[in-house]
Amino acid sequence: MSVRAFLAAKAAKTEQALDAYFATLHDVPDTLREAMRYSLFAGGKRLRPALALGAAEIVCGKDTAAMPAACAIEMIHTYSLIHDDLPSMDDDALRRGKPTSHVVYGEAIAILAGDALLTMAFDVAARANDPRVLGEIARAAGAEGMVGGQVIDLQSEDKRLSLEQLRHLHACKTGALIRVSVRAGAILGGATESQLDALTHYGQHIGLAFQIADDILDITSTEEVLGKPIGSDIASQKSTYPALVGMDESRRLANEAVSSALDALKSFGAEADTFRALARYIVERDS
Amino acid sequence: MSVRAFLAAKAAKTEQALDAYFATLHDVPDTLREAMRYSLFAGGKRLRPALALGAAEIVCGKDTAAMPAACAIEMIHTYSLIHDDLPSMDDDALRRGKPTSHVVYGEAIAILAGDALLTMAFDVAARANDPRVLGEIARAAGAEGMVGGQVIDLQSEDKRLSLEQLRHLHACKTGALIRVSVRAGAILGGATESQLDALTHYGQHIGLAFQIADDILDITSTEEVLGKPIGSDIASQKSTYPALVGMDESRRLANEAVSSALDALKSFGAEADTFRALARYIVERDS
Repeated sequence: MSVRAFLAAKAAKTEQALDAYFATLHDVPDTLREAMRYSLFAGGKRLRPALALGAAEIVCGKDTAAMPAACAIEMIHTYSLIHDDLPSMDDDALRRGKPTSHVVYGEAIAILAGDALLTMAFDVAARANDPRVLGEIARAAGAEGMVGGQVIDLQSEDKRLSLEQLRHLHACKTGALIRVSVRAGAILGGATESQLDALTHYGQHIGLAFQIADDILDITSTEEVLGKPIGSDIASQKSTYPALVGMDESRRLANEAVSSALDALKSFGAEADTFRALARYIVERDS
Repeated sequence: MSVRAFLAAKAAKTEQALDAYFATLHDVPDTLREAMRYSLFAGGKRLRPALALGAAEIVCGKDTAAMPAACAIEMIHTYSLIHDDLPSMDDDALRRGKPTSHVVYGEAIAILAGDALLTMAFDVAARANDPRVLGEIARAAGAEGMVGGQVIDLQSEDKRLSLEQLRHLHACKTGALIRVSVRAGAILGGATESQLDALTHYGQHIGLAFQIADDILDITSTEEVLGKPIGSDIASQKSTYPALVGMDESRRLANEAVSSALDALKSFGAEADTFRALARYIVERDS
């Protein structure tokens, strides 16, 4: 299966499941439900759910067990985008080609829609009946992971970071959630410890590759393709890989991360081919 | 044991446990850790943890099993206060006699400290190893519960609500979390279905009593005792019980709710005496 077909299939399945979870919500104020769905169904790539579902499939041939974690992580990812875009944070008006939540619903509802998605994520995650996985997701998303990374990011504006600091920032801000997507899927699929180790390394390296590629795209892509203004990192004086080490070295680092991700999969056979193709796709995509 | 001694004992235990959970967090940006702790250790009454711990004690004689839920719910309560106080929400500068989070740390860090506490709550709750309880806490805190209630509250400003609407608002905004505190403690303590039913009714009625008493205190207390400006509900033109039905009828409704709470406990013996006293205390307290 091509990577695009894999991502499209997993995205369709995930969206169906997300819709089903929403159908179990009763008695939610209309505006809140609408704001939650507006951001959750805004045409994201569903990379994290695909990683969770794909990891389960690699270890047990089926993705069903990973669905609660896949949906929970996508909800957490979505809430983080809503809060990151707020005026007091990155102050972004456009995301995936659409006005951001606070532009449409106002700041208060945007904050609350994020809060509600984050909270709902754990109700959904709990349905996997695995407190270990739920705890891992919470830690990856929390003060030691994604939220911590966003704090470092805010505190790094107008500062020139070292490559080490930039790597740490991204390991927290985006890496932790990508890594736990793979881990949650693997654990729920019944991975052995050595399978889990291998997939964890894979998740770690593609997380890094993903972020470097994102930094590059912010410079080389177009607003139409990316769905948000180009050069916004430069405008907000954020430290990025291209700014720190130049475009060529950034491309080299991204490819190096992809190689390490492929290495991590060497104990798997053909069942991991889609993950291999996905690792390459992450640095070759145009949006 | 007197209610004050009971609350003080449970608060001390809860704070020790919260502190221990924080000690397990590594590699958190200093500002974030400080902001999370600033609001979490701001001298709250710890009513919700006391309810969770007390409910477990009633059904099994020990409160240990309920501690993860007690701490998780207090973290959720605290995050909700941080976000409610934000400029785009209630815009409050003072809480429990101290400047609110966004006044001290700025809006971005306040939002993120709230996000981190909410996320950490579920890591902590997961340690109770009971996905049912975790799911119940998430639903009580989320779009159908507390967050939904906050949305209704925002949309009700400058509007005169009916008594039915006001009751619904509070059932979501504050009632759901108080109710689930009792339920979580009871379930984790191993309650039978009939014990759980009885304690659920108790939780529901004291939640209502608590809110009516809060509305009354906003008028009758002093800023020194309450730790926040008096008359803020009137200033922001919020619908309150006294505004809707007058002070005497509000007191009657509060007492009625306490009676219903006591009724709910009639199948219990002396083991529920502290909960009986607590129900009375809720409408007699001065802050």
